[in-house]
Amino acid sequence: MKNCIVAQSGGPTVAINASLSGVIEKAYTSGSYDHIYGSLHGILGILNNDIICFDDKLEDETFLQALATTPAMYLGSCRYKLPKMADDIELYEKIFAFFEANDITGFFYIGGNDSMDTVLQLSTYAKLHEKSVTIMGVPKTIDNDLCLTDHTPGFGSAAKYIATTLQEIAYDTSIYPLPSVTIVEIMGRDAGWLTGAATLARTDYGLGPDLIYLPETAFDTERFLEDVKEIMQKKPNVLIAISEGIRDKDGKYISASTKTLDSFGHSQLSGAGKTLETLIAHRLGIKVRSIELNLPQRCAAHLSSLTDIEESKELGRIAVAHALKGASGYMSIIRRESNQPYRVSYDIADISLIANEVRSVPRDFINASGNNVTEKMAEYLRPIIVGQPSLTYENGMPVYLPLPHLYPSL
Amino acid sequence: MKNCIVAQSGGPTVAINASLSGVIEKAYTSGSYDHIYGSLHGILGILNNDIICFDDKLEDETFLQALATTPAMYLGSCRYKLPKMADDIELYEKIFAFFEANDITGFFYIGGNDSMDTVLQLSTYAKLHEKSVTIMGVPKTIDNDLCLTDHTPGFGSAAKYIATTLQEIAYDTSIYPLPSVTIVEIMGRDAGWLTGAATLARTDYGLGPDLIYLPETAFDTERFLEDVKEIMQKKPNVLIAISEGIRDKDGKYISASTKTLDSFGHSQLSGAGKTLETLIAHRLGIKVRSIELNLPQRCAAHLSSLTDIEESKELGRIAVAHALKGASGYMSIIRRESNQPYRVSYDIADISLIANEVRSVPRDFINASGNNVTEKMAEYLRPIIVGQPSLTYENGMPVYLPLPHLYPSL
Repeated sequence: MKNCIVAQSGGPTVAINASLSGVIEKAYTSGSYDHIYGSLHGILGILNNDIICFDDKLEDETFLQALATTPAMYLGSCRYKLPKMADDIELYEKIFAFFEANDITGFFYIGGNDSMDTVLQLSTYAKLHEKSVTIMGVPKTIDNDLCLTDHTPGFGSAAKYIATTLQEIAYDTSIYPLPSVTIVEIMGRDAGWLTGAATLARTDYGLGPDLIYLPETAFDTERFLEDVKEIMQKKPNVLIAISEGIRDKDGKYISASTKTLDSFGHSQLSGAGKTLETLIAHRLGIKVRSIELNLPQRCAAHLSSLTDIEESKELGRIAVAHALKGASGYMSIIRRESNQPYRVSYDIADISLIANEVRSVPRDFINASGNNVTEKMAEYLRPIIVGQPSLTYENGMPVYLPLPHLYPSL
Repeated sequence: MKNCIVAQSGGPTVAINASLSGVIEKAYTSGSYDHIYGSLHGILGILNNDIICFDDKLEDETFLQALATTPAMYLGSCRYKLPKMADDIELYEKIFAFFEANDITGFFYIGGNDSMDTVLQLSTYAKLHEKSVTIMGVPKTIDNDLCLTDHTPGFGSAAKYIATTLQEIAYDTSIYPLPSVTIVEIMGRDAGWLTGAATLARTDYGLGPDLIYLPETAFDTERFLEDVKEIMQKKPNVLIAISEGIRDKDGKYISASTKTLDSFGHSQLSGAGKTLETLIAHRLGIKVRSIELNLPQRCAAHLSSLTDIEESKELGRIAVAHALKGASGYMSIIRRESNQPYRVSYDIADISLIANEVRSVPRDFINASGNNVTEKMAEYLRPIIVGQPSLTYENGMPVYLPLPHLYPSL
């Protein structure tokens, strides 16, 4: 008997279930596993014996396709960083005892940086103790900050959501002939990839964000006010995209530079957008609004990128394919072979080179003044937002799968 | 020579250009007008002689269809309330002098409450002074608060955006097995129609908003905390939809009840969502997040309702058809003839019964405790979010028309 188990971890994206779908599909069609299990709430499901079996679900031919376009995490998530082996060896023994008791020979973990650390630790333990379980990572993060892969699953869809929404906001805020500033705050505390996607909202007739600020370059509030005034001399309605993680030259978050007192008299951090809104209102006296795009950036499955969904699925399949050849301690990755036409290839990379590393936006993707991105950023981003998955709508609403971690009977 | 002119006013919606498209189409196919003009920035274009002509654009057969699915206001907007005739008769004379100079026999104004007041004033002036210009209103508002029409153009699409986004947020916030509260603040300062649309996010397997608060019933913060605690006993992740306009029993906005001090030491109003987020954090000590859906509610054309777009277009056609029969001082309206199957008819209604009136949510659309809506609300809403317009995508982005008020050469 040979079985495999898959789990998801970290923050959700609209493509993480596509990767899950790819893992299950390949594990199933390979015929190499007797049963395919899912661990609920990441590694916690293995520790708490909270497991589902996919065998029945695979009898429904539409299941894998519906799964691929369902947002958030089908198996639920956790924010659990495995302790180091030296600190809690019993936990590792417990996990591998579970694997043994359930004839698990393959474990697939879909997640971001912390999850890849789990893959690193577990695969190291397996090698040290000569366990015959292959441990493989499948990447996932809207932040696009994992190393060694051209981009990460979920990022393309988030970038498409941001670009489309920014363009629609640009239309909306351009209708009055009166001066106004609109600041849109975008996710990505340490890396500016998502904020960079604002550049795709630019049309060839000049609509779109006028200024774009990433966390990779130091943010100067005085310089920012000058930038805004300069744009206002050319057009009345200024649209600005900023990363939630913009910080000053000393590395201090802009959002932290201006504390407010809440109604309980406690000091509270505003978001970066709100902070700059207050600054513009007081210093320039112009009508100003800030918008936080918030969770829809990572869960708006109705607007996902087909390229992203298909690549995410393939990364799931690739991890399984390599595990079946004996690979363990690797993450599946994308390589961009050509940009025009867009062509990628898939491979795996040593997890120890990926876990706990972060990939920032290269300096030449940002302009010299740090108030915009360059054409290189746009070229890099364009192909990965292309294509619309065909969704099923019922009564005007997209149809997504019920989540088994919430409704065990489904 | 007989010409007509059309303008748009007030806040944008994703359907207001569909109404514009309907006005132009009917004016064109009727053969009753020699030229069809558009006034830029509402009535201001007439006052400032800032006008475009649609004759050339109509040579492009795709124009009207592309116009119908372009968000915001193709002609630009204004927030300009016409002074009363007694206060500034010269302004009225100027407007009608423009009509005369340009052989205008029909004026169509697409907008909300304030715009319908303009229609009332101008049509009254025309009658008093025996001017042969028909003045007709075409409704528009995401708030759904215009009287005498079953619902308003733009509302169905906003409702669809809210329902879909709420459902995606419900997926997103349900993935961790830890207690959390998510508050989503929805537009609609005086009427709770948009917030009511949150109920459409509910799935038959129990996902969706747990509590819904509208401005039509008094909001009690202590009662609210009890509601939240009660839900938390049943499930860890609570999702709450609130109107930005919720207020206490004395009519005081909840957002105004808890002033904060900004970084300049000035008192600032938080939104209702932020206010309740702070309340829950301090009083219940639970992880809590508030999300303001903000402008995308009224500009997310990529997620509009086909029913809304088609009805909006028809309301434009209807206004023209009646104007050609001599009607003046009316607004086109929708009547719901049947709910299952959904069937509507169109008519016009006396503008004096509509302008400056507001339609609230009926009490029986809200439950007795005021923390939810009833099935009546869901039944009313369901048909109007149905259908997805076919959008053209290019490089992964929806294609919208350039706006002539920004780019006069286009």
